[in-house]
Amino acid sequence: MAPKNAFYAQSGGVSAVINASACGVLETARRHSDVIGKVYAGRNGIIGALTEDLIDTSLESEAAIAALRHTPGAAFGSCRYKLKSIHEQSAQYERLLEVFRAHDIGFFFYNGGGDSQDTAFKVSQIGTELGYPIVGIGIPKTVDNDIPVTDCSPGFGSMAKYVATSLREAAFDMAAMSRTSTKVFALEVMGRHAGWATAACALAAEQEGDAPHVLLLPEVAFDEARFLDKVEGALARYGHCVIAVSEGVKRPDGEFFAASGVEDAFGHAQLGGAAPVLTKVITARLGCKCHWAVPDYLQRSARHIASTTDVEQAYAVGRAAVEFAVAGKSAVMPAIRRLSDAPYRWDIVEAPLSEVANKEKFLPAEFISADGFGITEAARRYLAPLIVGEAYPPYKDGLPDYVKLQNAAAPKKLAGEFVV
Amino acid sequence: MAPKNAFYAQSGGVSAVINASACGVLETARRHSDVIGKVYAGRNGIIGALTEDLIDTSLESEAAIAALRHTPGAAFGSCRYKLKSIHEQSAQYERLLEVFRAHDIGFFFYNGGGDSQDTAFKVSQIGTELGYPIVGIGIPKTVDNDIPVTDCSPGFGSMAKYVATSLREAAFDMAAMSRTSTKVFALEVMGRHAGWATAACALAAEQEGDAPHVLLLPEVAFDEARFLDKVEGALARYGHCVIAVSEGVKRPDGEFFAASGVEDAFGHAQLGGAAPVLTKVITARLGCKCHWAVPDYLQRSARHIASTTDVEQAYAVGRAAVEFAVAGKSAVMPAIRRLSDAPYRWDIVEAPLSEVANKEKFLPAEFISADGFGITEAARRYLAPLIVGEAYPPYKDGLPDYVKLQNAAAPKKLAGEFVV
Repeated sequence: MAPKNAFYAQSGGVSAVINASACGVLETARRHSDVIGKVYAGRNGIIGALTEDLIDTSLESEAAIAALRHTPGAAFGSCRYKLKSIHEQSAQYERLLEVFRAHDIGFFFYNGGGDSQDTAFKVSQIGTELGYPIVGIGIPKTVDNDIPVTDCSPGFGSMAKYVATSLREAAFDMAAMSRTSTKVFALEVMGRHAGWATAACALAAEQEGDAPHVLLLPEVAFDEARFLDKVEGALARYGHCVIAVSEGVKRPDGEFFAASGVEDAFGHAQLGGAAPVLTKVITARLGCKCHWAVPDYLQRSARHIASTTDVEQAYAVGRAAVEFAVAGKSAVMPAIRRLSDAPYRWDIVEAPLSEVANKEKFLPAEFISADGFGITEAARRYLAPLIVGEAYPPYKDGLPDYVKLQNAAAPKKLAGEFVV
Repeated sequence: MAPKNAFYAQSGGVSAVINASACGVLETARRHSDVIGKVYAGRNGIIGALTEDLIDTSLESEAAIAALRHTPGAAFGSCRYKLKSIHEQSAQYERLLEVFRAHDIGFFFYNGGGDSQDTAFKVSQIGTELGYPIVGIGIPKTVDNDIPVTDCSPGFGSMAKYVATSLREAAFDMAAMSRTSTKVFALEVMGRHAGWATAACALAAEQEGDAPHVLLLPEVAFDEARFLDKVEGALARYGHCVIAVSEGVKRPDGEFFAASGVEDAFGHAQLGGAAPVLTKVITARLGCKCHWAVPDYLQRSARHIASTTDVEQAYAVGRAAVEFAVAGKSAVMPAIRRLSDAPYRWDIVEAPLSEVANKEKFLPAEFISADGFGITEAARRYLAPLIVGEAYPPYKDGLPDYVKLQNAAAPKKLAGEFVV
């Protein structure tokens, strides 16, 4: 049977290691040229397929593909665009098939979070529903670590390493300054609904009294009085207080503490600003000087301090996605399975996309300390191995030497325009 | 002549490498035990001297002292406390002499920014004015790079490396997302009056079109209309716009763009929040989605990505301070002298504290591009070597392994309390 071409695309918020997954996909596909022909990358995710804006990755050198392993961002462009069901958006699905047919695409790899696994699942089903044979495989990616079934999600470990390292460093700063200056420091961490990354900040503490002294998790309703008590306790005992606050921390009524009122294309509230609001409350109530940091995109793109574990897992899920496809599987996602905590051992298994799509995995109750402001030993055992190892990128002139691909467009074969 | 003890302290906002200077002081003093006896560190800067809260550094192991080279923060605690003139605060100076006499202190090393060099200078003068022989040496430290005479200030190179790296990484993120999501990203950078670190963000760009597209320097009055034109230009040409904005950017009337209304103990306005204010303006006027980051303390404590050049210079000024003292010099500060840009060569010379104290060094006009939104090639030649080299700290369990000293207090010899 003649090889079929493949479509690969990146979707949703990017990470420090989504390109390592791309590297795994492309390097593995090149080794299976008997089954997979060209890999076309969608420029800006599924939009690239809908608009027939396909990047011919066969024009990229082996060295450039290899350099994706240490390059943050999304090399082919990402998107926030959610495909609805085939019944609601039949025109989009018909267009996808038209593009796939025109470019002889038989494999669809979609690399993203929960919404993207949903897209991968829907595409995998159109083979049956619309009579076009297409293999659909999801590849997990999210700094939020909220994809179910897989033990963890590529992208999370590196963000966890970044926030825990940054918090530890800022805490050394704070401790030095607190006698005559700043008493409270609040680090705002991404994760709008799930507190995984905020929880990971707790890894910065090695012993009693070490920062962070308070976590504000989105899974725990914010109680101002109890929170201020906790801060005052830390101030009394340690002379300063370091807080890790999730961008998604909510008031008891379920409202985000610091909603900006803006929504993204998926209908998710755009957040940012919980830490400044929080420190205003502390200054007003406790009268002490506060500092806050909102690293925002810095935390999810910090390839310079990526976790080796995370980079290896990101590559492995990309590789496994192609291997699953070559083995004739579809409607699955490579999932990371934990075999042991210490020594940390893991392998890759297949998860049915139907069980993965559109579900969020929150911090389980047994990972949250009794008072709600910290994590348990069980959480620490889970989190600790994910940040291990320093997968440094190469440097040039003092800065990380990241690759920019040529991203040459494959010639269009269809006459019509498709507006998304 | 019997050796005299030394006093060493750290002052002002801390940095990723001020402890490397401490390492240079302590290791060098140990090699000159014929001249310098014990080194007492002030707990929280000059306050430690005033309150007779002295740390006996001779109790710290060689390994612990060596580990200061890779540990951020201020190992002995810092302070924001400014000594006024001897005529205004004679009680403080008399108290200092009382403590120095009680502990046989003949050397005073003060490690900090412009205000701290002023303190070092004043203490160096009391030998003459109050008849107590004391050698006073300043050791430069400031992430703001605004100390005059020295070519650059230890602490700056590492912050510059951090902000340029972070901006490059966030720009890869932005570029991937901008088609369907965020169009503008603003990174807020420290430096309340001098735009050195904001200027260093420009090192992230390698070629035309690379981020950052706009710098907002504190040396250039903010002009909203011209700024928005510049942003629109970048959006039209590149599809997105990355901005590095100084925390100290000012309106034409000289007011800080985002003053918080709070002042620190030196009477300096506490800033923070220029980036969120700025992106609100952009969203209101241009209608596009913006993200912003305020790394705050993260940028000045990011020892995990310190510049090797900076670490070496920080150590060198600490070592030179002791060597100057041993050679009988006083009222001086080791300054870094640049011998050539490329290859970068430098050495250490002595700068009279009278020429250093209380002055700020701003970006010179020839470093700022004609439109005020960028830097010149001359600035690039100056900045480039300062971020070169990756002086990685050791890691343990996935996190930087920083040292916490015992910081045992030397027994007090004075009866009275001194309240600062």
